[in-house]
Amino acid sequence: MIAASSDTTDNLKQLAALVVSAARDKGISLGTAESCTGGLVAAMITAVPGASEVFEGAIVSYSNSVKVQCLSVSDSTLIEYGAVSEQTAREMACGARKALAVDIAVSVTGVAGPGGSSDEKPLGTVWLCVAEERMTSTKLEHFDGDRESVRHCAVRSALNMLLERLG
Amino acid sequence: MIAASSDTTDNLKQLAALVVSAARDKGISLGTAESCTGGLVAAMITAVPGASEVFEGAIVSYSNSVKVQCLSVSDSTLIEYGAVSEQTAREMACGARKALAVDIAVSVTGVAGPGGSSDEKPLGTVWLCVAEERMTSTKLEHFDGDRESVRHCAVRSALNMLLERLG
Repeated sequence: MIAASSDTTDNLKQLAALVVSAARDKGISLGTAESCTGGLVAAMITAVPGASEVFEGAIVSYSNSVKVQCLSVSDSTLIEYGAVSEQTAREMACGARKALAVDIAVSVTGVAGPGGSSDEKPLGTVWLCVAEERMTSTKLEHFDGDRESVRHCAVRSALNMLLERLG
Repeated sequence: MIAASSDTTDNLKQLAALVVSAARDKGISLGTAESCTGGLVAAMITAVPGASEVFEGAIVSYSNSVKVQCLSVSDSTLIEYGAVSEQTAREMACGARKALAVDIAVSVTGVAGPGGSSDEKPLGTVWLCVAEERMTSTKLEHFDGDRESVRHCAVRSALNMLLERLG
């Protein structure tokens, strides 16, 4: 288990290094808006030496009030669609782009468990969004596993989305 | 090395679990403002199941502009004292308390390396601050080691400061 966990972290660090390198090559600034990952995407990116050249910052909006206050997610979106939804993921990413003044922001909102799941949104349901100036791209994932596993899978998905946009 | 690294992470997770438990017992809400740790304090706290009962969110202010825009750190403080200073750490923690609307916020700003060090502020220099409604407490650390080691030591120090205030 120790080796597996370290492997996972090492793989994510390598992926984060590719993201930093690609952003540096293109002169693109990055930021994140994170709910279920709780800052883990930002932590992986900033583990890369020289990340400060491209990474401006992150807003970890664990509560709905921080989503509204710091990321300008609308109350009506949260009420109508819920925190784990395509709409909220998009508003989080767009809100982070503006709040952090970055070229590209990625958002993550999901059910990492053990609580918070429902028939409609079971444990492992994660919505992600990458926002650029003129476009957004959203993705729905259904991950298997426990809290730690879901969070790590969500980090990988977020880093892959960034890499795809930077590719 | 794998075992040592996993041990470190496990120790931090246990410490984070104590923080979440103490905050829950006292009905106190928490947030973080992070520079050199890049979201790692928030990631450790949110690795604890049930963290959402006490943890509202974080602002990772990796760049100075995010410190100013999202945490209300003043330009004059950054110019006069620099990003790694007692004054900036205090303004980051106080700014996070307000922006995230939490009872207690902890801030971390330091030189994780490999770049950014100076004679006055060598690699491993980290300022931390805990802000509550009527008080702030700042701490200066000088950690040894590489980027990963300095970041992990800074996370431990931040969690210990929170635990001390919640004790």
